[in-house]
Amino acid sequence: MRLHVPIRLRWSDLDAYGHVNNAEMLRLLEEARIHAFWVTEDAVGGEPEQAVGASTAVLDGRPGASTLTLIARQEVEYLAQVPYLRQPLDIQLWIGRMGGASLEVSYEVRSPEGTEPVVLYARAATTLVLVDAASGRPRRINDRERAAWTPYLGEPVVFAKRR
Amino acid sequence: MRLHVPIRLRWSDLDAYGHVNNAEMLRLLEEARIHAFWVTEDAVGGEPEQAVGASTAVLDGRPGASTLTLIARQEVEYLAQVPYLRQPLDIQLWIGRMGGASLEVSYEVRSPEGTEPVVLYARAATTLVLVDAASGRPRRINDRERAAWTPYLGEPVVFAKRR
Amino acid sequence: MRLHVPIRLRWSDLDAYGHVNNAEMLRLLEEARIHAFWVTEDAVGGEPEQAVGASTAVLDGRPGASTLTLIARQEVEYLAQVPYLRQPLDIQLWIGRMGGASLEVSYEVRSPEGTEPVVLYARAATTLVLVDAASGRPRRINDRERAAWTPYLGEPVVFAKRR
Amino acid sequence: MRLHVPIRLRWSDLDAYGHVNNAEMLRLLEEARIHAFWVTEDAVGGEPEQAVGASTAVLDGRPGASTLTLIARQEVEYLAQVPYLRQPLDIQLWIGRMGGASLEVSYEVRSPEGTEPVVLYARAATTLVLVDAASGRPRRINDRERAAWTPYLGEPVVFAKRR
Repeated sequence: MRLHVPIRLRWSDLDAYGHVNNAEMLRLLEEARIHAFWVTEDAVGGEPEQAVGASTAVLDGRPGASTLTLIARQEVEYLAQVPYLRQPLDIQLWIGRMGGASLEVSYEVRSPEGTEPVVLYARAATTLVLVDAASGRPRRINDRERAAWTPYLGEPVVFAKRR
Repeated sequence: MRLHVPIRLRWSDLDAYGHVNNAEMLRLLEEARIHAFWVTEDAVGGEPEQAVGASTAVLDGRPGASTLTLIARQEVEYLAQVPYLRQPLDIQLWIGRMGGASLEVSYEVRSPEGTEPVVLYARAATTLVLVDAASGRPRRINDRERAAWTPYLGEPVVFAKRR
Repeated sequence: MRLHVPIRLRWSDLDAYGHVNNAEMLRLLEEARIHAFWVTEDAVGGEPEQAVGASTAVLDGRPGASTLTLIARQEVEYLAQVPYLRQPLDIQLWIGRMGGASLEVSYEVRSPEGTEPVVLYARAATTLVLVDAASGRPRRINDRERAAWTPYLGEPVVFAKRR
Repeated sequence: MRLHVPIRLRWSDLDAYGHVNNAEMLRLLEEARIHAFWVTEDAVGGEPEQAVGASTAVLDGRPGASTLTLIARQEVEYLAQVPYLRQPLDIQLWIGRMGGASLEVSYEVRSPEGTEPVVLYARAATTLVLVDAASGRPRRINDRERAAWTPYLGEPVVFAKRR
């Protein structure tokens, strides 16, 4: 099963070539990941907005949280240039592998949902390691996390351009 | 009359102090301005999303447009630290002054709409100059633009911390 | 007396207009300020690089420092578009006002030192407040800081485009 | 043979975790690549700064250039967290593969040159495609480029964490 996370571009994501910068693409993936997996602060008094994957947002991303999420590796294939669009990109993500203390997130970055034809702008993967904030050492994925994420396990994204 | 533009934060807007960076705040204002005033590309085949200020989006912000919007001056007062929030900030903007070839946009950056208490994070103003892309010289605000923007003319934001 | 801080551009400072983005300009000022005023980590074992203003770098900018430097206000006048340049910009800064717990930094952003003609790209001012990290409240500029900064006190930058 | 490109961090490269953000790392690689391979504008009247790899900077990176450099793929392994450092990182790069219209750049991101112990923060690779700006289609690496880059051909960086 995939999560669909709508992520809005900013005009400042463009570089002097007039398309979304290659490094900025990783910020978009980061933001999609945060929407999917992190519990974050909601405005005081506000109706808590439904998280994208309400049941998957089990990592505490708030300041002072006991677990940090570090990135061990990333791979991206850029398939088409992304222009500035007013509608949010449709970033689809799932878990391609779940290890003891790490997980690999797979992504497809697509044109806004509901638009035709569908453009696949990029495919990517990120390996995350859960780290205990106090000790600085990896810590195991716990049962609650494993249960929350298991429905989103799938085949890892396949890269076409690797040597 | 004010335009209310909802602008989402990204986790990467935070700096090492854990709050939205001072420079990043100007990117949020930029994005609000673009949503309010620019005609931009919509995804091919997509239902054009309703612009925030449908009647105010009369500047062509697409690549190759004949008018560039340059920034002559900016002023910001930071009133409260902005944490990462899942809900979009409520950026309110209006036109504090409309000259021959330039306009001054006033802003208030507020906590997400519908949440209590309302926090005023920042107030700001930006002076924009319309520049002819071919000649590189300022060009006059035309009648269509003036008509579109006149309903949003108001008293310029008042800064409390100026020397 | 002015400090001259050489700050290198990055190509990613450019936006789709092909010049340094208005918000990015504030990052350049931030970096100049940090070089001038902050004690920062040097690479372990490395010869500590001479700080730009060796005697002015008295604020501890390292993680866990007891003082935070918050920004209360900024004002910028953009006078000329900045292209990508290989040589560092010459950011000149001085202290336009020193209060009890706050100081105002004045800047001129100029073309690389040693090049002709000199281009003044921007002038700016930032009001900084020293905040005690533990209490979150402003704390007074201490004697050591005042002594270090006094030689750099000068007339505040004069803005030409204020209403 | 490797090029050694000194790249300065900015404090704003840090994220709320207090270390250089994963996406920002790609900006540092981009900047190293530009210093190594691009001819760029020098300040008018200035003494042209010696390019890092004077003989390798044969791609015209100036606005209006006839060739664009697009990125087809990137891969990064993050080996250690990068704190804010005053001295420039030592980004070493070489060409791991040179094809007809594309090349793969290999990198090692290291602690500042001359400091001990040497820390290897990241290894990475970027596949670049040369694109004719007019037609938008790939164009072949020409003889001058091939001659300039051949001395920097080496074994592609080996990734240790690939599945």
